Amino acid sequence: MLNQSMALDLMFQALADPGRRSMLERLTRGPASVSELAKPLAMSLPAVVQHLQVLVASGLVKTEKVGRVRTCQLEPTALRSAEQWIADRRMVWEKRLDRLGEYLAATADEEDENAKQASER
Amino acid sequence: MLNQSMALDLMFQALADPGRRSMLERLTRGPASVSELAKPLAMSLPAVVQHLQVLVASGLVKTEKVGRVRTCQLEPTALRSAEQWIADRRMVWEKRLDRLGEYLAATADEEDENAKQASER
Repeated sequence: MLNQSMALDLMFQALADPGRRSMLERLTRGPASVSELAKPLAMSLPAVVQHLQVLVASGLVKTEKVGRVRTCQLEPTALRSAEQWIADRRMVWEKRLDRLGEYLAATADEEDENAKQASER
Repeated sequence: MLNQSMALDLMFQALADPGRRSMLERLTRGPASVSELAKPLAMSLPAVVQHLQVLVASGLVKTEKVGRVRTCQLEPTALRSAEQWIADRRMVWEKRLDRLGEYLAATADEEDENAKQASER
């Protein structure tokens, strides 16, 4: 079992290649054999197999051999955990910005109030 | 200007390292100088600077030099586009599963209906 950080390394590494992203894109539309995966890509079958191994190692794809055909399928749990890591960081950052906005608005109100009181004196 | 695919390569590549993810994590809590970024990490300042360059090249972080201090800040647009890429694929996949579920449920209903009619004859 990989620890969480190593799992994220492998997943983001797997996502960092346009060929592997094309393969994932294809698999979102349903399971496919290795040769079906290779067909639209401008690369050799061995290159496709190598990319597939990276995808499998990352947990994003699983394969199953039935008879002579190896079928590849998306593993959504891994996709979701990569997405969640980014979303969590983005939300912390956005909350921080919201608090900053509220603070600045409150400070501006206070300044308006002070200016009003000063002009009334 | 980078094209969309190259931009994704650089972003996912940048996210594929635990040290760089720690730096992003720190920046979600607010801007930081390079030495503040380096402090909690078990790596040399040159290594931190190198990781920072990868983060800047990916568009995830921007830096600004004011006087003698370089301040680093998160760039949420890039974070959001990496998240969006994953979310879009996950949603296509989940919709496909939903349709498959509906189809299987409809088929099961039809079979029940046929079995009922057969037993009534």
